[in-house]
Amino acid sequence: MTHNKSYTLDEIAELLDLKLIGDGQCKIAGLGTLKHAGPGELSFLSNPSYASQLTACQASAVIVRAEYAESCPAHALVATDPYVAYAKASALFDSSPLNPPGVHPTAVIGDEVELADSVYVGPYAVIESGVSIGADSKIDAHSFIGRGSQVGNNCRFQNNVTLYHDIVVGDNVVIHSTAVIGADGFGFAFDGAKSVKIHQLGSVCIGDNVEIGAGTTIDRGAIDDTRIGNGVKIDNQVQIGHNCQIGDHSIICGCTAIAGSVKIGRYCIMGGASGAVGHISIADRVKVSAMTLVSQSIAEPGTYSSGTGHMKTSEWKRNIVRFQQLDGIAKRLKEIEKNTDKK
Amino acid sequence: MTHNKSYTLDEIAELLDLKLIGDGQCKIAGLGTLKHAGPGELSFLSNPSYASQLTACQASAVIVRAEYAESCPAHALVATDPYVAYAKASALFDSSPLNPPGVHPTAVIGDEVELADSVYVGPYAVIESGVSIGADSKIDAHSFIGRGSQVGNNCRFQNNVTLYHDIVVGDNVVIHSTAVIGADGFGFAFDGAKSVKIHQLGSVCIGDNVEIGAGTTIDRGAIDDTRIGNGVKIDNQVQIGHNCQIGDHSIICGCTAIAGSVKIGRYCIMGGASGAVGHISIADRVKVSAMTLVSQSIAEPGTYSSGTGHMKTSEWKRNIVRFQQLDGIAKRLKEIEKNTDKK
Amino acid sequence: MTHNKSYTLDEIAELLDLKLIGDGQCKIAGLGTLKHAGPGELSFLSNPSYASQLTACQASAVIVRAEYAESCPAHALVATDPYVAYAKASALFDSSPLNPPGVHPTAVIGDEVELADSVYVGPYAVIESGVSIGADSKIDAHSFIGRGSQVGNNCRFQNNVTLYHDIVVGDNVVIHSTAVIGADGFGFAFDGAKSVKIHQLGSVCIGDNVEIGAGTTIDRGAIDDTRIGNGVKIDNQVQIGHNCQIGDHSIICGCTAIAGSVKIGRYCIMGGASGAVGHISIADRVKVSAMTLVSQSIAEPGTYSSGTGHMKTSEWKRNIVRFQQLDGIAKRLKEIEKNTDKK
Repeated sequence: MTHNKSYTLDEIAELLDLKLIGDGQCKIAGLGTLKHAGPGELSFLSNPSYASQLTACQASAVIVRAEYAESCPAHALVATDPYVAYAKASALFDSSPLNPPGVHPTAVIGDEVELADSVYVGPYAVIESGVSIGADSKIDAHSFIGRGSQVGNNCRFQNNVTLYHDIVVGDNVVIHSTAVIGADGFGFAFDGAKSVKIHQLGSVCIGDNVEIGAGTTIDRGAIDDTRIGNGVKIDNQVQIGHNCQIGDHSIICGCTAIAGSVKIGRYCIMGGASGAVGHISIADRVKVSAMTLVSQSIAEPGTYSSGTGHMKTSEWKRNIVRFQQLDGIAKRLKEIEKNTDKK
Repeated sequence: MTHNKSYTLDEIAELLDLKLIGDGQCKIAGLGTLKHAGPGELSFLSNPSYASQLTACQASAVIVRAEYAESCPAHALVATDPYVAYAKASALFDSSPLNPPGVHPTAVIGDEVELADSVYVGPYAVIESGVSIGADSKIDAHSFIGRGSQVGNNCRFQNNVTLYHDIVVGDNVVIHSTAVIGADGFGFAFDGAKSVKIHQLGSVCIGDNVEIGAGTTIDRGAIDDTRIGNGVKIDNQVQIGHNCQIGDHSIICGCTAIAGSVKIGRYCIMGGASGAVGHISIADRVKVSAMTLVSQSIAEPGTYSSGTGHMKTSEWKRNIVRFQQLDGIAKRLKEIEKNTDKK
Repeated sequence: MTHNKSYTLDEIAELLDLKLIGDGQCKIAGLGTLKHAGPGELSFLSNPSYASQLTACQASAVIVRAEYAESCPAHALVATDPYVAYAKASALFDSSPLNPPGVHPTAVIGDEVELADSVYVGPYAVIESGVSIGADSKIDAHSFIGRGSQVGNNCRFQNNVTLYHDIVVGDNVVIHSTAVIGADGFGFAFDGAKSVKIHQLGSVCIGDNVEIGAGTTIDRGAIDDTRIGNGVKIDNQVQIGHNCQIGDHSIICGCTAIAGSVKIGRYCIMGGASGAVGHISIADRVKVSAMTLVSQSIAEPGTYSSGTGHMKTSEWKRNIVRFQQLDGIAKRLKEIEKNTDKK
């Protein structure tokens, strides 16, 4: 992929603090995968299972571990962790539009709003009264920041982000389109005939360096607040229920559903479309695989799964019938073992 | 959590119709959990498993069942159902912003729109022609009400709610941000080479006292209408397919996926991230646990589940291999039983 | 359902290229199901399991296969595939609002935007600089088209559709409300202490004749582009990760979660709330049943499933305990077989 920025390899080596083996004047105008990169592009080899693609790689330069520097057919940028180096390189070539500071004349700004001078507010955004937005933050078109919410410095809200009232967002937080922060938690008391709404009086507190994906919803707390730790990364269409606490640097992949009052530790990874039932705790450094339901607390770090692998539906149908007989099968086996022992 | 409203205990006892044991002049300024409430706050004890927290509770008053009134260290509000009483108390302290009646000058209002005098329409809302909105309803910023839709009295649409054309919404309906009501049902006829769109000519009818969460989508019917009964509560990111019928007072937890033409009875509970395949019926008072797929009709009330519990991935991998052999295992067991019998 | 358009049976027979047996002057004002259609309505019989409803059908006309023409109590329109004929008939009676060409005065249009004369842009839409929109396309209220994106001819974006920057959309593409195309893929490199963002430099390319449901998110590629083939139909609340490739004419049902770099073939069907883990390939003409997780590549066409059927929770609890013992059960069975063989 070629972008409108370009750098010499010397510049890239300096910016990324990498050792260059090759021509420092070589111009790089974009990034490419090992397989598809062409001249003028920079690639990377991180996962050793792609090492065989290195020989035929057409990139002008490749970020590699020291052990691959010699066999690299292009200029080599040597990194301890090529994947992290690639992440940093990707920032150099990011050409996504960044609007200059300023408030679009169509934005509706309430009373007693504090906007740092360097803030951008896009067309048709609505900023309610009592809101404060820190330096260098960008609030794009159609976003809605509810009464009394506080947004830190250097945040980036894409178009059509919603914050309900009294939400607190830290610094360097990215929120993608149609995410909704602080809608009512799902709380009702059943009185025997109907559900009586439990008004949700808490808020949502989001730490620093958090990223929140498109279509994700994080509910406000019932009484206390919902809390998202520092460095947490949340993908698209994730649902986080009221009063959850997500520990620092945890990662929540797309379409994950976390019920209310779940406490997730630090450095956890919830796989795509996974879930957790309400009122449980998950320890630090727990990994949960895709579409796994965590149905009770997990006290030990490690990797956890539920479900069955996919198979041909015809075979699957026979097996799920047996699954429903499984307790009986186990008992019959036990019986046979008992009889066999006797003999 | 302390709010800007406060009440004496006498006032709360009267408003909630509860018996007070203690000082009626004591001022209450907010709600708190048994564990975290402090002076000036009201708490509640509903689930007996938290009874041990009562002794150390710092709240000024606690809503309790009669049996706990004596051991309550604070003023006691005695309730038959403390959880319902707490729900009612939560309404007293709700400080979420409510805009006064009036149509924001930036709202775009079509022809022949009927807005009751007491209606609020927020900035940049778009109300298409032929829409009617009943008394005391509030339609917040960026919402879109499609041509000919009818909204009842005392509804609350948060910012950025979408109603397509010709949708009917009852009274006292709350809809949260980015919910979409009445998009096309997913209907295509495959002609052997491509999918031919089935235009969705039905609508969506939503009863009274319904709540619909952020990011939820309810599709319009193919020919007849999709119907949501009275008192139904729907959480965030739920998908309800075309021509579904959801019975009165049922509860649909977050991220649930209901395919087309599903009929769900009254007083059902669909757990979080559960699902139902199309064209089935579910009886009244059925509960479905989290991430369960209902794959055929359920005729009897009760609680239903599918899936497997989570376990360490290493153990799980061994077990899912066996799951794929399960039919064979059952047959081999049968064979042994036959042979054992013979002997 | 009665609409404001009506046709004679002769007209319908001609427009749909069907043989009519009956009164060509009979007026049809709408469509109805076999069960609920009344006089003046047209119905259809496609699934033979509904054939018993034909006798009592009150419709004025029914679309049927030749074999049912004689037993049809109403005028008969004879079709090889009545379901496809019904799909075409549904288009005749679609009365959803279509705005005439023109740019609403409140739309914000950036520099160097190319809008064909016949384009409609709704109130408060934001079209950033460098965008082009082809003939007859309609972009409804509150939509946001990011810098440099290209939209083909005859597209229909409902209100509040988001395209990030540099997205390419083909002709005849329908996108429903709150869908987000081109948000950042979920890519981070963990440096041992924190997640370093991988800027997402690719785009999204969407083919012709695609439909995308409400609340669906399709992420932009990390380096190369995410690609949606021609004729692909995507339901509501689907998540498609960065660098996925969806083959022509595949169908993705609601709430499906597809991780990054998944390649899905042509004419596939992903059932509702199904999923696929990252970096796998799925062959052409694969069907995946509802809530199935595809956890590795599928090389052969066919139907695939995972999970367990639902059952009463009390029985299920016993069976999931046994599932966790399943590898042990299989080994014990093997042991018995060995011992039995010896005897």
